[in-house]
Amino acid sequence: MSETRIVRVRESILKQNRVEAEALKLRLSNAGVVLVNVMSSPGSGKTSLILKTIEALRAQYRIAVIEADMDSTVDADKMTAVGIPAVQIETGGFCHVEAAMTQAALEQLSLPEIDLLFLENVGNLICTAQHETGAHVNVAILSVPEGDDKPLKYPVMFAVVDAVIINKIDYLELTDFDMQAVRDRIRVLNRDAEILPVSCRTGEGLSEWVSWIRGAIRS
Amino acid sequence: MSETRIVRVRESILKQNRVEAEALKLRLSNAGVVLVNVMSSPGSGKTSLILKTIEALRAQYRIAVIEADMDSTVDADKMTAVGIPAVQIETGGFCHVEAAMTQAALEQLSLPEIDLLFLENVGNLICTAQHETGAHVNVAILSVPEGDDKPLKYPVMFAVVDAVIINKIDYLELTDFDMQAVRDRIRVLNRDAEILPVSCRTGEGLSEWVSWIRGAIRS
Repeated sequence: MSETRIVRVRESILKQNRVEAEALKLRLSNAGVVLVNVMSSPGSGKTSLILKTIEALRAQYRIAVIEADMDSTVDADKMTAVGIPAVQIETGGFCHVEAAMTQAALEQLSLPEIDLLFLENVGNLICTAQHETGAHVNVAILSVPEGDDKPLKYPVMFAVVDAVIINKIDYLELTDFDMQAVRDRIRVLNRDAEILPVSCRTGEGLSEWVSWIRGAIRS
Repeated sequence: MSETRIVRVRESILKQNRVEAEALKLRLSNAGVVLVNVMSSPGSGKTSLILKTIEALRAQYRIAVIEADMDSTVDADKMTAVGIPAVQIETGGFCHVEAAMTQAALEQLSLPEIDLLFLENVGNLICTAQHETGAHVNVAILSVPEGDDKPLKYPVMFAVVDAVIINKIDYLELTDFDMQAVRDRIRVLNRDAEILPVSCRTGEGLSEWVSWIRGAIRS
């Protein structure tokens, strides 16, 4: 198979996905549901952030979660344990979520009973950023132990999101992570993204994040 | 395009890659070069581990590095700074290295002057594990801040490698990372992989890793 053929197949898949994602976004908007797509490397704290956000917002919004994992229900079980409806997408060999997968997950949820739906994407800083999911709000998490050079190395992710959470700031003293450098590197790629330093462990910065996501839900 | 068609295209690409990887491995063996493929999430410490390993082995072996990055020469520059020949593969949108990319990188290196060649793969715990690169030895790094549940969530990676480095063990006290649990989870997926806890920062465990890689090079 020629390189050109591979590129064409890939572009055709990406284009079809974009169309499906737009349709899905409209369907969700009409149902009064805001979908928030959370992306990061493995272990940056997607599950922890979503759990903390649920804690802060569950009195105000009816929340559900779609969990995407290659091959386990670890995260979905954590959501169910706190009484939040959770649907598991097992992506198998897939390295990202695309609109058709979100669509399939929605069949297992009752949209009229949901205001706010989180999608915890597969732990992957590359492929997830290249595939629209149907989400209204896209968030990336970068955790301090990963290092401040990540925007240089994975630029697409930082270019496409509405907010970047810098998680695990309680590790800052152990590392040479340069917060100003990371801000500058993100800003080059994305003029508008909100940059929010937090620690899910100590709670620092979480109220700023919660205010921001509340605003994003309303708009 | 139908799902079946997509799956067939994907299988055909993977099969062609396996054939190319085997040919490449043979070519390298004949040239007396051992290729070591280092994989992990973004920010787990691939560059640091390779730099520490070079420090320990450069008196004994002639070493070079292939650096794969989506869009930067940050890592290649670090290798060049310590006097190690480094070739950069810019993968663009690609989320992994496959044999044809390794092959292209080799054109820029002089094989008769190399004993040990490191391939620092793209930071990705999913796609890299699914694509053979032509390497003789495959190593995964899992860093402590990522959490001990990663083998449950990214099983392919832990199934295909010859060794798993548990890096950043100097963070252990800050986390609830359970070393025995992670060992058990890896063992279920892979009976033979060596499991090596290290800290590239403090140096703990590095001599065990260096002994292991020395053995792997010889065999």
